Amino acid sequence: MVIVGKKPKMRYVTACITLFNRGENEIVLRARGKSISNCIDVALLLKKSFYSNLKIKNVFIGYDEAELNENRKRYVSFIEITISR
Amino acid sequence: MVIVGKKPKMRYVTACITLFNRGENEIVLRARGKSISNCIDVALLLKKSFYSNLKIKNVFIGYDEAELNENRKRYVSFIEITISR
Repeated sequence: MVIVGKKPKMRYVTACITLFNRGENEIVLRARGKSISNCIDVALLLKKSFYSNLKIKNVFIGYDEAELNENRKRYVSFIEITISR
Repeated sequence: MVIVGKKPKMRYVTACITLFNRGENEIVLRARGKSISNCIDVALLLKKSFYSNLKIKNVFIGYDEAELNENRKRYVSFIEITISR
């Protein structure tokens, strides 16, 4: 799994290429909150510029619960994109 | 289809509830770029707080091409979430 944050997209693209070169056939990209659009960009960039046969196998959305203190909870949306070559 | 932008989430939640009340069974939520996380929040908020049986039927990601001028193109990622009650 590659956790996509706020760093430049190419960092995550490179991480995925490294994993594919090591023999992985399937990678899950995961991001939360504001990094979600970055995560989608990474998946589409890999497909557009590096692996034209890349498959977006699954896109899953959900939310993580984070307990701030005893009374308050916060919900943060996440996305998980499964790609395979 | 409901286009989700940068307005408060509840605006879009209300728009969806109105559509469901008018008899729609399926709604497509669409957002581009930075509004994507807002769009996911809207879908999950509808499920968590309003329609516990709501189904996230499909999540599709892709990119729109925008021609800036003759030589340059810009790509903007989008998400389309199909929800049904």
